[in-house]
Amino acid sequence: MTRFEEHFRMRENDIVEYVKEKLDFFGPNELLRCEEIGDGNINYVFRVTSMDSTRSLIVKHADIADRSCGDPLAVDRNRIEANALIHQGVLSPGMVPKVYHFDPVMSCLVMEDLSDHKILRDELIDYRTFDNLGRDLAEFLVDTLLPSTDMIMDQLEKKRLVKEYINPELCEITERLVFTEPFLNGRGKNSLTALDEGFADRELYSDKSLHLEAAKLKMDFLTKAQSLIHGDLHTGSIFIKEGSVKVIDPEFAFFGPMGYDVGNIIANLFFPLIRATVDRSGDENKEIFIYWVQDTIREFIESFRLGFLLKLKVNAREPFAEDENVREWYLEEVLKDSAGIAGLELIRRTIGAAKVKDITTIKDEGERAMAERLCISLGKELILSRDRIMDSDSYFEAFKRAQSH
Amino acid sequence: MTRFEEHFRMRENDIVEYVKEKLDFFGPNELLRCEEIGDGNINYVFRVTSMDSTRSLIVKHADIADRSCGDPLAVDRNRIEANALIHQGVLSPGMVPKVYHFDPVMSCLVMEDLSDHKILRDELIDYRTFDNLGRDLAEFLVDTLLPSTDMIMDQLEKKRLVKEYINPELCEITERLVFTEPFLNGRGKNSLTALDEGFADRELYSDKSLHLEAAKLKMDFLTKAQSLIHGDLHTGSIFIKEGSVKVIDPEFAFFGPMGYDVGNIIANLFFPLIRATVDRSGDENKEIFIYWVQDTIREFIESFRLGFLLKLKVNAREPFAEDENVREWYLEEVLKDSAGIAGLELIRRTIGAAKVKDITTIKDEGERAMAERLCISLGKELILSRDRIMDSDSYFEAFKRAQSH
Repeated sequence: MTRFEEHFRMRENDIVEYVKEKLDFFGPNELLRCEEIGDGNINYVFRVTSMDSTRSLIVKHADIADRSCGDPLAVDRNRIEANALIHQGVLSPGMVPKVYHFDPVMSCLVMEDLSDHKILRDELIDYRTFDNLGRDLAEFLVDTLLPSTDMIMDQLEKKRLVKEYINPELCEITERLVFTEPFLNGRGKNSLTALDEGFADRELYSDKSLHLEAAKLKMDFLTKAQSLIHGDLHTGSIFIKEGSVKVIDPEFAFFGPMGYDVGNIIANLFFPLIRATVDRSGDENKEIFIYWVQDTIREFIESFRLGFLLKLKVNAREPFAEDENVREWYLEEVLKDSAGIAGLELIRRTIGAAKVKDITTIKDEGERAMAERLCISLGKELILSRDRIMDSDSYFEAFKRAQSH
Repeated sequence: MTRFEEHFRMRENDIVEYVKEKLDFFGPNELLRCEEIGDGNINYVFRVTSMDSTRSLIVKHADIADRSCGDPLAVDRNRIEANALIHQGVLSPGMVPKVYHFDPVMSCLVMEDLSDHKILRDELIDYRTFDNLGRDLAEFLVDTLLPSTDMIMDQLEKKRLVKEYINPELCEITERLVFTEPFLNGRGKNSLTALDEGFADRELYSDKSLHLEAAKLKMDFLTKAQSLIHGDLHTGSIFIKEGSVKVIDPEFAFFGPMGYDVGNIIANLFFPLIRATVDRSGDENKEIFIYWVQDTIREFIESFRLGFLLKLKVNAREPFAEDENVREWYLEEVLKDSAGIAGLELIRRTIGAAKVKDITTIKDEGERAMAERLCISLGKELILSRDRIMDSDSYFEAFKRAQSH
């Protein structure tokens, strides 16, 4: 008889006992230390370390309630994260943490400890640069997204997977925070830290043509079961150290539009670029960083385009995809979606309930006002002209237009 | 202990015993007669009639194999049909047969007998006309399709339903017969009865721009979980008598694009119009029928447009739908999809494995050749210019262009 046959919210000592009982990871007599290290809003994350060795692991534990607000939240997100990590790990080896154990009863996902890596967002805020980041992220997306599309996966098998990954509660969070609240005043907790209400009113709440485009993108997100996407792929979900990139936290995974992941990466690379662009401090790393991050955005988009077309050509089972025009149309649709999503992410992370540190930690209020203005203007440019934004040049042209507003 | 605790393929005497055991529909001592009346390819359909009264019912029984080819086919289609009939019956009372009983173990769906109705396709082939048919079908679609969209249904509830109606095997049949085989020679059992291979080769197999558009429509069908659609809404799935229309056989139901149902109705009204158009026999009902069926197509499309916008305005919960521009965009997308689907249906029912009697029973080979040519030309017009086909006028303009080819 074990204590772990019915779900309860586990604490550090429970986790130590749990890990000893369920896994052979540590030796039987190893002394273990456990600390809760979660900084997210939803789950509890524990690191368990052997005091005798350097071995360690992570336990991600889902409670039946949201950690920050206490509202009920389906523990099923833990199952989805475990399955998505296994799925991505097969398709893109080494790019996600290894899964050691998953327990649907206790909602415990035990996985590789990546404490030797750092969170990419924090590194970019500090103007650190990394070789090949754009290429690595593009390869990860091509490798993990395309295989579960109808172009490549058997269409019966795909429908089985769609069912397995239906993720209503976490999708609802995205639908609300990304697609709705930033545009409809009074629905969410919108705020700008350095610009006045009038700006938001004029640029977001009163712009009916923008609302129409946001509605189109929202309907796509709600209905387009294109591929098993990560669903929350910002720079806080990416761990990095020199020579290694790891993508974590796919608990928002579901079958949605591929452009959702691609666009999130692009927007979250523009945030540090915008931060550096408005920075008048004379930081010595700034110029190099601006050059590098622009190059990384280019490299990401162009590697994605090339890799996508190549993988589609080599692996497609869908007979229509034998035609090059069909493959190019398919890529173009993903790229248009990506530009729209990048625009939404730029806006919602500036004005919405979940802001990014890249912008909020800009100390000078004038610089921060300029950054907020740039994020929202670029966001609008990308949303409204997304049908023409299909390569890296067009992103930088949109950025120029936003700067000249 | 009963014989009906494990699935087996039931015959007439099993059905009689089953109905007596499971339902209170007939009196305990009524003598029952049972006959198998199915004319479809997939299931067994029994009519059970009381010899003492006028009471009767229908038992639709799914075997674990496809009736015509013997290939395994999931009996789950029977559950989907039962649930879809109940769903539609609530939303559009009187427009579908009443469900008396559903048994997932025996895969038996027991429902209202509609033997006093006739199959619409046969009636249209005989140039019979019916008042308000266009309006009734448009209302049925507006009433049954819109409530399960994200515009109206709670978005969590909708995802639960999407999961319940995932229907891989029956979708695969449609994907193959409608979207793939008619365009790619050698993949299916294509044939024309009165035109030569050269026509198909020129107009369908070699037309790369047509393939691209078919591929786009196919990807939409595979991924766009817009609403719970009927999925097989041709005139053979519609029963009619004066003053009553009943829509049957929703076993292909799943969350797909609404235009799939709308376009199928339109195409299947054009088949008898084309049949009458090429008819040189001097049938006295022909001229009235042509007038009536054109009027019915108009009435269907225009009633659908008006009813759709009105229901959306009154019932939408999605905040963006408060904006009239969003509602009109949403309708336009459905109409474009409908035109594309109508085009695909016109083509596949002419050249594909499942032809329509409206065309195949045209006796004169010259007339039939003209009908086949018209179906395929109109089909291509609708597919290739679907972005501009959003009202009934544009359908008849496309028909004129097809006639002048």
